[in-house]
Amino acid sequence: MRVAFQGIHGAFSEVAARSMLGSAATTFPCETFEEVFDAVERGRAHRGVLPIENSLTGSIHQNYDLLLHRRVHILGERHLRIEHVLGAHPRTSFARLRRVRSHPQALAQCAQFLRRHPSLTVEPYFDTAGAARSITDSDDPETAAISGAYAAKLYGLRILRRNLEDRATNFTRFLLVGRTPRQPQRKGPMKSSIVFRPQRNQPGILFRILGVFSLRDIDLVKIESRPDPEAAFDYLFYLDFMGDPAEERVARALDHLQEVVVSYRLLGTYPADRRDRRSLRRTRGATGGHSAD
Amino acid sequence: MRVAFQGIHGAFSEVAARSMLGSAATTFPCETFEEVFDAVERGRAHRGVLPIENSLTGSIHQNYDLLLHRRVHILGERHLRIEHVLGAHPRTSFARLRRVRSHPQALAQCAQFLRRHPSLTVEPYFDTAGAARSITDSDDPETAAISGAYAAKLYGLRILRRNLEDRATNFTRFLLVGRTPRQPQRKGPMKSSIVFRPQRNQPGILFRILGVFSLRDIDLVKIESRPDPEAAFDYLFYLDFMGDPAEERVARALDHLQEVVVSYRLLGTYPADRRDRRSLRRTRGATGGHSAD
Repeated sequence: MRVAFQGIHGAFSEVAARSMLGSAATTFPCETFEEVFDAVERGRAHRGVLPIENSLTGSIHQNYDLLLHRRVHILGERHLRIEHVLGAHPRTSFARLRRVRSHPQALAQCAQFLRRHPSLTVEPYFDTAGAARSITDSDDPETAAISGAYAAKLYGLRILRRNLEDRATNFTRFLLVGRTPRQPQRKGPMKSSIVFRPQRNQPGILFRILGVFSLRDIDLVKIESRPDPEAAFDYLFYLDFMGDPAEERVARALDHLQEVVVSYRLLGTYPADRRDRRSLRRTRGATGGHSAD
Repeated sequence: MRVAFQGIHGAFSEVAARSMLGSAATTFPCETFEEVFDAVERGRAHRGVLPIENSLTGSIHQNYDLLLHRRVHILGERHLRIEHVLGAHPRTSFARLRRVRSHPQALAQCAQFLRRHPSLTVEPYFDTAGAARSITDSDDPETAAISGAYAAKLYGLRILRRNLEDRATNFTRFLLVGRTPRQPQRKGPMKSSIVFRPQRNQPGILFRILGVFSLRDIDLVKIESRPDPEAAFDYLFYLDFMGDPAEERVARALDHLQEVVVSYRLLGTYPADRRDRRSLRRTRGATGGHSAD
């Protein structure tokens, strides 16, 4: 099994791929998200892994746009906690460090740590895994990288500090995609993702669209509106719900949906990752314990 | 009028501040978004300007979280087209360039341009305006910066290329915030932003919440669900609608809303920027011409 992901070896997307497919999968680094889609569409990779939303920075519309236009299907999802470590040359110590290198966003997420250590000069880098690799490549005992633990270990760095991030709630949701839809095979609750454009000039159209699901007791997990990049006065909607079009009530809901939208696309049906088994319709209360991510 | 913004002089947030308040306003650079809120809360600035969503990268949840917890109110909004230029030393030429410097996200958004010019080495930087400033500071004729036109001009760079970005649909929505809510003063359509937590264990709760607005003919402009960072099994909703709580039907809708949510907060009521006068309920059709951004 060959899996395409954006970034270099050690990237969080590769961690998500390993977490979904195990260590036997061969990972295939791509420079851009488009190349991940190309690799899957043209069969150079069996699967692709893509970040789709982050708890601090929101939905990655660019990947939604690609999902909408490319011939791929969502086959799975994984929520990954984004945890930053400080990795350095194996024969150095924290006291010897002069510089810290990482992606500007990761540096911003570790602002409190960096403020506590003003003697460390901060250097921007293209990505977190690349920052880790650059330490190994340069054999530099005075510079550390902020990256995921997986990247630090992969490039032979010694982890000097963990959990550098200011906020523990930083997680990214990744999607697993492939060329053909998932075979019906239910293990636990299934989730479906759709994108649609509502009809124009229809009062209360969104209320009617949600009725399609609500009247059939289908639980919504995510809803998001977004100005359509291709039509100045239209909106796109992302909707995730619990259910499989193989169930009759879901199939009927999707039939009904077609009466009230201009277009819609089923992006895929896949086993829900633990974080999403709760839903917008019937949440289980905060006493249910912590989710896996 | 003193306006706080995150970044250094020349940042896109400063451009948004100037576009909303004119050139007479004094802009006040802050290192973090938290500092922008601090400055407004403590009266060190009269206003703050914050990016809240981007058309490629989604909603900036971090600023929604700060809006929810800090004592500030939204007073205005502006959609700004994010356009990248190549700025260089005034006495250099494109042929002399060896390096291009910018924030990794800006570099990624100009990937096609960079691929067409493989002789240019790409260097990551903390932010686009800082990249522009670094060219001036180093007086280096072989390095160019990718930044907004405003930053390039501010730091005395010569603009060698414009519209470097792959996709023209890159815009950011900025909010203007202040310590006291806007005085009632209607000039054109008003918009309101709320955040709410729906009741738990209520089937079809979202459908009922949208009914509160739909039954009163109130147009929705944005809806987004998001896992609540403070409660593992709850969701937060962002909702923007056309209307002012000074209108009776809007006041009644917000009263009604309190019956179906655990908590809600009105983040502000403000004149809608042109891009948002269309709504999810009754869009005007794609023939209405191009929006300002």
